[in-house]
Amino acid sequence: MKLMQWDSCWLNVHLATMREGYGEIRDAAIAVKDGRIAWLGPQAELPSGWQASAVYDAGSAWMTPGLIDSHTHLVYAGNRSNEFEARLNGVAYEDIAHQGGGIVATVRATRAASEEELLAATLPRLHSLLKEGVTTLEIKSGYGLDLASEARILRVARRIAASFPVRVSTTFLGAHAVPPEFAGRSDDYLRVVCEEMMPALATEGLIDAVDAFCEKIGFSAAQTERVFQAAQALGLPVKLHAEQLSDQQGAALTARYQGLSADHLEYLSQDGIAAMASAGTVAVLLPGAFYFLRETQLPPVAALRAAGVPIALATDCNPGTSPMTSLLLTMNMACTLFRMTPLEALQGVTCHAARALGLAQETGKLEVGLSADFAIWDIDRPADLAYFIGGNFLKEKVFRGRLQ
Amino acid sequence: MKLMQWDSCWLNVHLATMREGYGEIRDAAIAVKDGRIAWLGPQAELPSGWQASAVYDAGSAWMTPGLIDSHTHLVYAGNRSNEFEARLNGVAYEDIAHQGGGIVATVRATRAASEEELLAATLPRLHSLLKEGVTTLEIKSGYGLDLASEARILRVARRIAASFPVRVSTTFLGAHAVPPEFAGRSDDYLRVVCEEMMPALATEGLIDAVDAFCEKIGFSAAQTERVFQAAQALGLPVKLHAEQLSDQQGAALTARYQGLSADHLEYLSQDGIAAMASAGTVAVLLPGAFYFLRETQLPPVAALRAAGVPIALATDCNPGTSPMTSLLLTMNMACTLFRMTPLEALQGVTCHAARALGLAQETGKLEVGLSADFAIWDIDRPADLAYFIGGNFLKEKVFRGRLQ
Ligand SMILES: [Zn+2]
Ligand SMILES: [Zn+2]
Repeated sequence: MKLMQWDSCWLNVHLATMREGYGEIRDAAIAVKDGRIAWLGPQAELPSGWQASAVYDAGSAWMTPGLIDSHTHLVYAGNRSNEFEARLNGVAYEDIAHQGGGIVATVRATRAASEEELLAATLPRLHSLLKEGVTTLEIKSGYGLDLASEARILRVARRIAASFPVRVSTTFLGAHAVPPEFAGRSDDYLRVVCEEMMPALATEGLIDAVDAFCEKIGFSAAQTERVFQAAQALGLPVKLHAEQLSDQQGAALTARYQGLSADHLEYLSQDGIAAMASAGTVAVLLPGAFYFLRETQLPPVAALRAAGVPIALATDCNPGTSPMTSLLLTMNMACTLFRMTPLEALQGVTCHAARALGLAQETGKLEVGLSADFAIWDIDRPADLAYFIGGNFLKEKVFRGRLQ
Repeated sequence: MKLMQWDSCWLNVHLATMREGYGEIRDAAIAVKDGRIAWLGPQAELPSGWQASAVYDAGSAWMTPGLIDSHTHLVYAGNRSNEFEARLNGVAYEDIAHQGGGIVATVRATRAASEEELLAATLPRLHSLLKEGVTTLEIKSGYGLDLASEARILRVARRIAASFPVRVSTTFLGAHAVPPEFAGRSDDYLRVVCEEMMPALATEGLIDAVDAFCEKIGFSAAQTERVFQAAQALGLPVKLHAEQLSDQQGAALTARYQGLSADHLEYLSQDGIAAMASAGTVAVLLPGAFYFLRETQLPPVAALRAAGVPIALATDCNPGTSPMTSLLLTMNMACTLFRMTPLEALQGVTCHAARALGLAQETGKLEVGLSADFAIWDIDRPADLAYFIGGNFLKEKVFRGRLQ
């Protein structure tokens, strides 16, 4: 009989493996070898003669997969609380825009920031997520809108992965907005995005996926398709900001390109849902933006559920429409505002979020062979994670097998 | 010339004194003696020859008064995430109630808990508030509903004040609900509340104020008045859960008894507003409960503002209708959902909250003579506190002059 020799083993823990539903295993043990899950099951069934260099007693805490925030614009400089305050004091949005506010303000501040300054500006937001058990994080560019600035954002994203206990998936969102120097010439700008920026950034290894903002106030579906074609030519997967404010049939377009995810989706049609279902494209819902914008059009959760489209949830952390740095609160908002269940909320920040990033073979469940990314919680039951508003009962976090 | 000799002094700090609006003083200093604010002003105007036993450099951070959560039900046992999950899975509220759910479940768990167990159950929620800069906290009873259990809750509240860096204001809410053993006999129960429980708890020094739940599903205005009369006879100030689900004219009743505050107020009438304005009764708004219940009737913020009624904000932390432990998020919800301004939100958790607790002479502003309760923030401007969703940029906290 083979002797089990592990690097570490957690005892006296309740697991929410997320393998099927919560996939609960109470009074369990879970073992790690070389950063990956080597064994898990009821503690009573531990193989005889097991050994581990480190043994931890979880004190009957609950363990979930490390959380995954699958849609963020985390790296930017400046914030827009001044605009937030001005609007609440009655200043019209047009006046704020005329005074150089809106996304232009963030682009200006981000372009002016050095790589060090950008990283420093991002750290408080990063720590806010990490202390809630996040072990995987998507970060989009899109506030640079020129090659040098987009590169700087994506390099900061890579530095975060190198310096902190978190896996970072980078997304090139050059097609976020038309920068001021291309005003009225969006096709010219897109040519630069597709022919200059994307190849250069891909060559530097800075792009894990490509995204665009497909909307009346963003880029058309036809323009979006040019971005997707450029990505496809470079072998990069795509995703899309789709159907947030109107139905542009962006989700169906994304599905045609086997996109990883279509995100927002308040105005998603039944056709879009069917296309996503057959392509396996994940729906990433962003309740923080819905809340902050006081949107009233709900994403079609029941229809997505019925069609079997996996639903992920993310913070959409950004300075303009979702200055949100809590994935736990995102879970509560999904339940409170979208009437998702606590189970769906937890799937949305674990297994389904991993799939939205193309990382389902790497993380998002507690399963032998996957990365040992754990969040350990002082809670009574998994539903607590979605139930509390503004609470955080994280006890410990493990990334790639290492206790943080 | 008198030499200034202080215990401590903070330099290089921006103050939001909350004396008039934000009452901003940039590049300021603030000095403490015997736990109270001894001097504050522009650093350049520090009196010559000042001395302090401890001098701190705040590094250009912002300082506000320590935050005040003026309405909580923090002390209880058990939680109701199981009901939250059941409802989202489609179980009817009536079925949950039939199975012993709802407030009865919390009363049962709270009665069964020892004082130690109650304290232990409360600590995670307490820490969640404290780490956001809360230095004053109201705690209501109301999940015991018998003398021994109500006393246990209020003793836990007093122990919190004795053990942690926070001032606690206790509120006796025996008239929260009719306990099962008095089902159908609410007047009999109120007799026990007024004639037995309230005098006994007051004698033990456990009551700072008296509250009731005046609502169709709670106690009538006439019953509430009996509670207020009993409080008045004992010299205790009153406040009220008023106009949350319907207009019971509870706010006007509270004003007639010179109540400290009327709380919730979604269905408050213009008459109620006028009565509160002339009595100086504070409006305590609870956006967490509004959010969690998906209420659509907004409290009359514009009319309260026009009438000059001070508006406080609080978490209403409780297991049934607001499992909320973030006062910063409460500020954001007040802005996002109620369209209050960031300034009003900050007043709502500082100076106006102090007034709602009868503590305006003690805390809630940065002013010579008041308690040195400070929250120091890594933010660019005071509006940041209301702008971020789920963030917490507290750098340091000072309670009664002591750095925590
Ligand atoms: Zn986004
Ligand atoms: Zn309450």
